[in-house]
Amino acid sequence: MTNTVKPRILPGFMELLPEKQITFNRLMDTIRHNFEAFGFAPLDTPVIELSEVLLAKAGGETEKQIYRFNKGDTDLSLRFDLTVPLARYVAEHQQDLTFPFKRYQIGKVYRGEHPQKGRFREFYQCDIDIIGRDKLNIMHDAEVPSVIYNIFTQLGISEFTISLSNRKILKGFFESMELSDKATDILRTVDKLAKIGMDGVRAELSRYEVPADKVDQILNFVTTEGSNTEVLNKLTSANIQNEAFLAGVQELTQVLHGMQQLGIPEKNYKIDLSIARGLDYYTGTIYETTLNNYKEIGSICSGGRYENLASFYTNEKLPGVGISIGLTRLYDQFQNRGFVRDNGQKTPAVMLILPMDEDIDLAFRFATALRNHHVPTEIYMEQAKFAKKMTYANRVGTPLVAIIGEDEKKNNAITIKNMQSGEQTTLGFEEAVSMVVHFQKNMKELLEKPIKM
Amino acid sequence: MTNTVKPRILPGFMELLPEKQITFNRLMDTIRHNFEAFGFAPLDTPVIELSEVLLAKAGGETEKQIYRFNKGDTDLSLRFDLTVPLARYVAEHQQDLTFPFKRYQIGKVYRGEHPQKGRFREFYQCDIDIIGRDKLNIMHDAEVPSVIYNIFTQLGISEFTISLSNRKILKGFFESMELSDKATDILRTVDKLAKIGMDGVRAELSRYEVPADKVDQILNFVTTEGSNTEVLNKLTSANIQNEAFLAGVQELTQVLHGMQQLGIPEKNYKIDLSIARGLDYYTGTIYETTLNNYKEIGSICSGGRYENLASFYTNEKLPGVGISIGLTRLYDQFQNRGFVRDNGQKTPAVMLILPMDEDIDLAFRFATALRNHHVPTEIYMEQAKFAKKMTYANRVGTPLVAIIGEDEKKNNAITIKNMQSGEQTTLGFEEAVSMVVHFQKNMKELLEKPIKM
Repeated sequence: MTNTVKPRILPGFMELLPEKQITFNRLMDTIRHNFEAFGFAPLDTPVIELSEVLLAKAGGETEKQIYRFNKGDTDLSLRFDLTVPLARYVAEHQQDLTFPFKRYQIGKVYRGEHPQKGRFREFYQCDIDIIGRDKLNIMHDAEVPSVIYNIFTQLGISEFTISLSNRKILKGFFESMELSDKATDILRTVDKLAKIGMDGVRAELSRYEVPADKVDQILNFVTTEGSNTEVLNKLTSANIQNEAFLAGVQELTQVLHGMQQLGIPEKNYKIDLSIARGLDYYTGTIYETTLNNYKEIGSICSGGRYENLASFYTNEKLPGVGISIGLTRLYDQFQNRGFVRDNGQKTPAVMLILPMDEDIDLAFRFATALRNHHVPTEIYMEQAKFAKKMTYANRVGTPLVAIIGEDEKKNNAITIKNMQSGEQTTLGFEEAVSMVVHFQKNMKELLEKPIKM
Repeated sequence: MTNTVKPRILPGFMELLPEKQITFNRLMDTIRHNFEAFGFAPLDTPVIELSEVLLAKAGGETEKQIYRFNKGDTDLSLRFDLTVPLARYVAEHQQDLTFPFKRYQIGKVYRGEHPQKGRFREFYQCDIDIIGRDKLNIMHDAEVPSVIYNIFTQLGISEFTISLSNRKILKGFFESMELSDKATDILRTVDKLAKIGMDGVRAELSRYEVPADKVDQILNFVTTEGSNTEVLNKLTSANIQNEAFLAGVQELTQVLHGMQQLGIPEKNYKIDLSIARGLDYYTGTIYETTLNNYKEIGSICSGGRYENLASFYTNEKLPGVGISIGLTRLYDQFQNRGFVRDNGQKTPAVMLILPMDEDIDLAFRFATALRNHHVPTEIYMEQAKFAKKMTYANRVGTPLVAIIGEDEKKNNAITIKNMQSGEQTTLGFEEAVSMVVHFQKNMKELLEKPIKM
């Protein structure tokens, strides 16, 4: 026995067994395909950047969590989100990009948080952003929720709500109440409404010396109830003559109209004037997405409209709108609650070939024929008893198994077993290839059928 | 003007513009699809690991290049390859894995090399390995070159050669010559044959005090010429009665037979007794892949068979076989030589919709209909003159453009322009959807047609 190091990873890092990794990748692929379906181009930025560049804007809590170190004389940091690298990228390459620039990025980011359940130090973010030069049409803000809707629907989740608002509405409302100097504190407090309740908000606002009658008006306003049309009507007829307020209501009206045209079902979005999100960053439309029956998870996909992406890197004005999904945390939450379940497969293979003896020529030829038709195929090559081979087949969980023994070799035939139905059939080589190709095509079509007709 | 930080990345890190990133991702997807076509399961390990664990085996040159740092009291390192994390993973999870364990991993690794052309500090590796418990059938060694063959063929490269050998052959040959004590030095020297030539090898071997007549025998042996069958025949009839030698020849014979059955064309592989590769690691079959007309690039895909994957983490014996592709360097080399060319598209979208005015309801409905049929679709939403809209269309390079103006809206119709042929046609809404879905299906089928029939 030699001395060995105990194999282990750091707390706060996610690593999965094959069956779970396959499920995780299925989530990631669904997100990626939807990003591409809306015409977002892929981007891949370095994980390591110069601290001077990456931390140009950072401060406070974020900076404390950074993985920062020296290599030689160079002060380096690992990226902690995908927004700062995007800002740096667009500022750096603006001469070579075509605007509006639509990009998605799916990649790992790093935050040295205290490890606790549901918190990760290394996690995937999945971001889309649309960046304009000088200006960016408001209707982009309507497309973003359509991306969210398509992703969660395709993940098999239907009971979710995209909450949306426009920062200008509350901003204007506070201005009209002559509370602008307290606007940030009030927004931060109101944003906690779902967590601390009406009385909590009342108590906190009184600490900020907001007069009691105005507190009631604020609470009344942010909890405005009704269908989207009703809330919009109330806002339009509110008779608040404030520029920001009126602009916000108009934008929200346009965005809601666009969402309707894009076919997002009314039940999956609602105006929520209490959401505030990213106080120092977002300036227009804002989004949060929650699961109707699991509000305690919090927002699983958020974002919004910002005035200027990259003021730390360029004097060019670059407005944008985007969202971010924290995939690692999302997977973890979904996994814990059984929203995503492995289908038991530990391999991407659709077909597992079991040669019955050491002569595996026919198995090799069959495998190549299938792979040439893009059917993922695995061969079990170890010498073992039939029972052990079938145990392997059951464990890795391919939907089809091919058995190749003496008879098959004599007749250039393949015996195929459907592992779900238990059905078993022996076919000539070419027929067997066609059968399996057809089987996989049906599987794929089932997965790729139009979302709705 | 505010003061800004100059946006830039570190030397030795690759970052691409959208059209190039799309091409890079096409390479990566081709590799990934082929890995999955052979039944390799995905794996994703953390980029950061405990130095104690990650560097259990490392030393010398590798250790100097490591990105290593402390976070709090913890000594951390960034992974420098995907093999050590695999060893750690298999040792850690062996109770939960099914053997033979076939995994692929595509991910970034980090080496703080001196930056120079063609060298990267952050680069993608694409690895496959098959790991057995105690033993692993030799025929896996035949499947690995089939993966290599399929990948490069699908990348449109046909002039490549997979060189293969078996470490046991040279080992046994040196034993039979009573040169075992000098075997490592001789192997390292012989491995340089392509670089330093016969005379270089002669000079270096004489420095190791290998007698001149034996040097001739060695050079004679490693440069054995002929077809694969001829070289095998020469080896079989060489009358070298050494156990390792005979075992090596037998394994090589089996592997070559398997490769033939798997349908790899003879012109794409050849026995090369001069390759040595990973002296302290590989123990059986070894592979190198070179481009016939660009030998100076060196091996673009290498690997081999090893006795024991994870001796630093477990006393369990875990033999395996695998290969690795350094994707970032490969892309860089291919790009520089024009082997991969962007198709000019800066977006994954097949369709770009150009609404002619601010009323974009029909554009939104058309986009949703297409996306529901999995046609990637983008909408240009900015207010601009027609010429500017067409400039955008030409820049992003979608194959199709839809024009929606007054007439189209009146008739619920869409005008579709094929940007390659210049053909333009106006169709009813449903017809237009069918036409585009059909167009994309043809595009996809062209890409997905069977590799060969």
